[in-house]
Amino acid sequence: MKATVTVMLKNGVLDPQGKAIAHALHTLGFSGVGEVRAGKVIELELTETDPAKAQAAAEEMARKLLANTVIESFRISLED
Amino acid sequence: MKATVTVMLKNGVLDPQGKAIAHALHTLGFSGVGEVRAGKVIELELTETDPAKAQAAAEEMARKLLANTVIESFRISLED
Repeated sequence: MKATVTVMLKNGVLDPQGKAIAHALHTLGFSGVGEVRAGKVIELELTETDPAKAQAAAEEMARKLLANTVIESFRISLED
Repeated sequence: MKATVTVMLKNGVLDPQGKAIAHALHTLGFSGVGEVRAGKVIELELTETDPAKAQAAAEEMARKLLANTVIESFRISLED
């Protein structure tokens, strides 16, 4: 099954990449854009077929490698 | 409303970041991991309240700035 891990900077952590994107969008004439946050997404193909175990494995991967949990939060979604 | 733009390398385009993550996960002992693809996610706060217009605006932003459509594909999801 496929696990998608989305990693974003926590609220309150300065996001210069998001700020740069917002500035570039305004420069390109997109006026209705407020805050922009940039993050990472990692799609993992897992051999595990049990959703609960796949979720637990993906969470462990996120905590150990994919996210820096001091400044980043992550969410996981699963698909067959 | 909030638009989330997810940008991934197209299938067939080599993804060295994904390969590196897969290798690191194997080194850490996660054995049930197959292909890994890495991408970007950009969360945009839009003043637009009409979903169709917000979708169109986010698509234009993705094509003009957020994604390199030669090698990357994008998908958009909207939330109130």
